[in-house]
Amino acid sequence: MAEPEVMQKIVSLAKRRGFVFQSSEIYGGLRSAYDYGPLGVELKRNIVAEWWRAMVYEREDIVGLDAAIIMHPKVWEASGHLAGFSDPLVDCRNCKERFRADKAPKVAAGTEVSYQEGGKKGGKTLKGVAERGYVCPNCGGGDLSDERRFNLMFRSSIGPVDTIEEIAKYVETHRDLEGGALREALDGVIRQSAVYLRPETAQAMFVQFLNVQESLGMKVPFGIAQTGRSFRNEITVEHFVFRSCEFDQMEMEFFCEPGSQAEWLKYWCEQRLAWYQRFANHPERLRLRQHHPDELAHYADDCYDVEYEYPWGWDELEGIASRTDYDLNKHAEHSGKKLSYFDPQKPNPETGKPGLRYVPYVIEPAAGATRTLLMLLLDAYHEEAVPDAKGEDATRVVLKLHPRLAPYKAAVLPLVKKDGLPEIGHDIVKKFLQAGLFVSYDEQHAIGRRYRRHDEAGTPYCLTVDGQTKQDQTVTIRYRDDMRQERIPIERAVDVVREKLQRGDR
Amino acid sequence: MAEPEVMQKIVSLAKRRGFVFQSSEIYGGLRSAYDYGPLGVELKRNIVAEWWRAMVYEREDIVGLDAAIIMHPKVWEASGHLAGFSDPLVDCRNCKERFRADKAPKVAAGTEVSYQEGGKKGGKTLKGVAERGYVCPNCGGGDLSDERRFNLMFRSSIGPVDTIEEIAKYVETHRDLEGGALREALDGVIRQSAVYLRPETAQAMFVQFLNVQESLGMKVPFGIAQTGRSFRNEITVEHFVFRSCEFDQMEMEFFCEPGSQAEWLKYWCEQRLAWYQRFANHPERLRLRQHHPDELAHYADDCYDVEYEYPWGWDELEGIASRTDYDLNKHAEHSGKKLSYFDPQKPNPETGKPGLRYVPYVIEPAAGATRTLLMLLLDAYHEEAVPDAKGEDATRVVLKLHPRLAPYKAAVLPLVKKDGLPEIGHDIVKKFLQAGLFVSYDEQHAIGRRYRRHDEAGTPYCLTVDGQTKQDQTVTIRYRDDMRQERIPIERAVDVVREKLQRGDR
Repeated sequence: MAEPEVMQKIVSLAKRRGFVFQSSEIYGGLRSAYDYGPLGVELKRNIVAEWWRAMVYEREDIVGLDAAIIMHPKVWEASGHLAGFSDPLVDCRNCKERFRADKAPKVAAGTEVSYQEGGKKGGKTLKGVAERGYVCPNCGGGDLSDERRFNLMFRSSIGPVDTIEEIAKYVETHRDLEGGALREALDGVIRQSAVYLRPETAQAMFVQFLNVQESLGMKVPFGIAQTGRSFRNEITVEHFVFRSCEFDQMEMEFFCEPGSQAEWLKYWCEQRLAWYQRFANHPERLRLRQHHPDELAHYADDCYDVEYEYPWGWDELEGIASRTDYDLNKHAEHSGKKLSYFDPQKPNPETGKPGLRYVPYVIEPAAGATRTLLMLLLDAYHEEAVPDAKGEDATRVVLKLHPRLAPYKAAVLPLVKKDGLPEIGHDIVKKFLQAGLFVSYDEQHAIGRRYRRHDEAGTPYCLTVDGQTKQDQTVTIRYRDDMRQERIPIERAVDVVREKLQRGDR
Repeated sequence: MAEPEVMQKIVSLAKRRGFVFQSSEIYGGLRSAYDYGPLGVELKRNIVAEWWRAMVYEREDIVGLDAAIIMHPKVWEASGHLAGFSDPLVDCRNCKERFRADKAPKVAAGTEVSYQEGGKKGGKTLKGVAERGYVCPNCGGGDLSDERRFNLMFRSSIGPVDTIEEIAKYVETHRDLEGGALREALDGVIRQSAVYLRPETAQAMFVQFLNVQESLGMKVPFGIAQTGRSFRNEITVEHFVFRSCEFDQMEMEFFCEPGSQAEWLKYWCEQRLAWYQRFANHPERLRLRQHHPDELAHYADDCYDVEYEYPWGWDELEGIASRTDYDLNKHAEHSGKKLSYFDPQKPNPETGKPGLRYVPYVIEPAAGATRTLLMLLLDAYHEEAVPDAKGEDATRVVLKLHPRLAPYKAAVLPLVKKDGLPEIGHDIVKKFLQAGLFVSYDEQHAIGRRYRRHDEAGTPYCLTVDGQTKQDQTVTIRYRDDMRQERIPIERAVDVVREKLQRGDR
């Protein structure tokens, strides 16, 4: 399928089945913001829970953190985000489009281009030269403003301060200022109470390094893991939830001895790739890609991306960076606090005696929960030719989600809405809910339609209550992936499903 | 214990054991913002998981939602937050303190007050009259500015717009504006790209009412549940995490037939009070309090608070409001979308035939995860007189958290760091981690100190590996609450702990 077609199908299924809705949809939506519906919230919770299990619960060397989204502004000064977390912004003088220069369609500098006046269909055709080496992504024109840096952090203001009043007061008493001086002065007024929404969860792990290490007595190597919301005021949002202004991250900072970072980077690359592949139908669509030396951030001595083959090609899913001691050093410098680690056993090369203080190096596997959710929807989406009830060719849409990630663990379907079958169905549902397994009771429409509905919802097992159930206390269990059916006793239903979930049986 | 003493002990223990740290502490902290450390994040996750289990997984009639934090600004226009979500702000002319008028110390209007000049110790003593009926909470003076409304929503700006540049441009071309006209004009400039951080999670459930109802085929009565971060730029922050600018909510909107709301309000009050009491050591410190008619918000026809007896007195833990059809009507009005429900069975009183469309009424139990965490720490904190190793009087501090909420489910402690005991300990830990049970391995310091450490961490069971373990493959299980000990076989350790957790055994 072509890219737009696949993505359209995913977006449409996501809305239809309650995975993802456009945020504030009744108000026309808001710049690629999304809300996760009843099934989406379960899928996302399951993704985060599996990550947390792999990163925290199944290991002795990693512990969690859950930090405030609004941190002290000095954090972003130290991390370099205030000065450098920006993209090049350009205005098209022809159609007024505002866009990211580095994402604009590239053409050889000096190419002659033609475009419609004002970017409108039927407008006068204009000719120009693409002097910049790229053109406006909207109208294709080359008449562009200078590039300027646009910081991606959302800024707000904290404390009982009315920023508009402060600006107005300032303006009234400084009538003479203009141009750059005015902008700088206004910037100074705003900075006094300015705070920023975190553009990544990572910095909190550096800022709280000492508190975590000391309160839990952690010994290097150890890691701090955090999941949560981050915010970037993206100039360009794209590909559904792939790049949006608000997203959920799953990040871990692994602190290790200087010199051991290459080994740990290799370890974490393998771990993280294997984690995704464990849940994928198409592990071949996942790969590791090493960054070229000219791609590396200045603080990194090596970096890999876990990439997925999206409908638009290979693109990032997770970044795994070897960040050296850059972050701890920067925060130590800006805060005046010693962010280092004392190893009482390690020999000090200067004295030859045990006991060495050093600044740990860091490996950072930084994953996105929302991006993983998109990857899993794409990986799970299958269309199959299956005869319908009348024996005619039809298409079955099925979401082959890993059973542990699927929102509903099972659906309980009474064949008909009478003869006591609904009552038996509700009793079965009750047993599952009491066991903490989220299941759906569904009696609307013919059984075939209900199977199709749960195929689309990714429900791995359907339990059907029928006439025979009343005679022998068994139900049919129908498997989502190959539609095979078998009968199992009601009293074993919870255990059967639980065992299948643990093994990941399809 | 006096209030400050108890709170100091809780704050100190929270930091020492990795529950709660001051946010951005190395930079001097930020206005009562908090980070949840390795044990705090587990406690908070467990609270949220138990709420979600009770509200979503154990019921057929409630589903989840996870909405964006930044919603369309019209949401806050419709909900009334833009116009009305504000507190009265006052400046003290003497000491420059800025405070909430409704929280300031009350005195009879006209009382004569004396206070230090500039609010400084040793300053000149001034006398004045508290004309307003309250005084400055800092210096006690009565020389106050007018009250003005301060909106508690954090404002930011979305899209590729540099607000400082926009303001500067505007100012340069409108040199003549001043006073109120200038402020209004600047407000207009900022409003063009303004967005707000949600001050509550609730509105998303109203805005997405139709998408959720239709995608899942929900039938009234049904509920939508959401947990997540909310933000309020509080003028006054107080009592540790009780009132801070950033907090985690657990809210549910229950949509029911008009006329049935009183019954459902009663039902939810009972459910919610029982939920807290289930986890509490002191259920008598929890109560329901009905709002007085003059406390009710204009949209509510009834409201209860679940209150807890904090060290500073009875205060709010959760609000359970009967919000009528106010919210759905407001959003329908502002969005132009019909936010109603069609019941095909219910008879239409006008035609007598089945089929009635109506706007559901709403019951909203709105809980705070962070506030619940504080309540549970306070409820669990116990000091006991217990002889120390030398038989002398000593105080044992123990956090009697409900085992299912406790961060570590167990601690594995080798009696000594040799003779193969650490290896056995690590093997036991591995079994627990594989079973998804978060446990701690701890070999630092004497066994008595380790027990005390885990008493403070709220770890319900300590498993001690000793000399006998090597002979008969048993370990000691030591219970946190009464310190009794018994031996159990290693091979049964995971099952024993799991069973105790399910039953809530102490």
